[in-house]
Amino acid sequence: MQPQPRPRPQTPKPNGQDHQHPVLAAISRRRSIRDYTAAEVTEEALREIVRAGTWAPSGINNQPWRFVLIRDEQTRKQLAELTKYRRIVLSAPALIAVFLDRDAMYDQVKDHQAAGACLQNMLLAAEALGLGAVWLGQILQNKEQVRQLLEVEQKHDLMAVVALGHPAPGEQRAQRKPLEEFILKSI
Amino acid sequence: MQPQPRPRPQTPKPNGQDHQHPVLAAISRRRSIRDYTAAEVTEEALREIVRAGTWAPSGINNQPWRFVLIRDEQTRKQLAELTKYRRIVLSAPALIAVFLDRDAMYDQVKDHQAAGACLQNMLLAAEALGLGAVWLGQILQNKEQVRQLLEVEQKHDLMAVVALGHPAPGEQRAQRKPLEEFILKSI
Repeated sequence: MQPQPRPRPQTPKPNGQDHQHPVLAAISRRRSIRDYTAAEVTEEALREIVRAGTWAPSGINNQPWRFVLIRDEQTRKQLAELTKYRRIVLSAPALIAVFLDRDAMYDQVKDHQAAGACLQNMLLAAEALGLGAVWLGQILQNKEQVRQLLEVEQKHDLMAVVALGHPAPGEQRAQRKPLEEFILKSI
Repeated sequence: MQPQPRPRPQTPKPNGQDHQHPVLAAISRRRSIRDYTAAEVTEEALREIVRAGTWAPSGINNQPWRFVLIRDEQTRKQLAELTKYRRIVLSAPALIAVFLDRDAMYDQVKDHQAAGACLQNMLLAAEALGLGAVWLGQILQNKEQVRQLLEVEQKHDLMAVVALGHPAPGEQRAQRKPLEEFILKSI
């Protein structure tokens, strides 16, 4: 699979986006991508993204994450009806539903954090593969219906759905508060 | 002309560590580093790591994360007494305590996930800067004492402490289950 990183902006941006290091650059360049071309996403790419997710750390290395890879059109259409972000889901040629296996969980807070770390790896991996992705959380309002639609065992708790596709042309923006607002103190 | 099947990797390494792409390689190469040399970690490096953390996505972009950067020896020694991983904390020349600001939170599960995404960015950034890091969660057992020691407002909820330093020589290992155990289905 040929990684296709998106071109970097020419002019250095504020907020440290002008990194020379590829990983730091990727972290600050990543954006939620909500518009996709019609080009399909291969199963191989989805597996690569999931694999990156599984390299996240988890408490006591319990690796509680489980995944459903979705490219089937009918399933995508049905999923779209379960979120207010219907348009994004309809536009995305692939989706990955991320669950936690309750049998593997050991601590609610830490397992939810691990799911977040896993999702972040997935988003970075998608970008590295030249894809665009967005983490959909609002669909958790209907997580039981999602689980039933995907015919997944009851012990699996939906954490998020990631929508994926080849980015449609267009500028992506993101805003972050100044760093100083996040640093409570330095001692 | 026969259609040419795409070439497969000649000698695939286990766990996807044979990536050409720097970001995918960094994700699968990252390890929890628990032994450090005596070399100090600059405040600038800590700020770069925190900045990477803040580029994580958060639900409704609430950016609920807050940080305390710790290099002061006395504080590190006191923190070490609040976890069974005393040895790691004593060995680390720098620590970053990650909190969520309850005033900024909007959904417990999603905010904890966002903290996890933030922490994963921090771990990847540390590695990119040539540092070693480990995410310490066990210290949450004493999160109230940590908050008081760091003299942080009560509204801040400790999510984790990251220990950081220059990696001491030695092999780092990590184990992950086979990918197939995580993929419930592909549809």
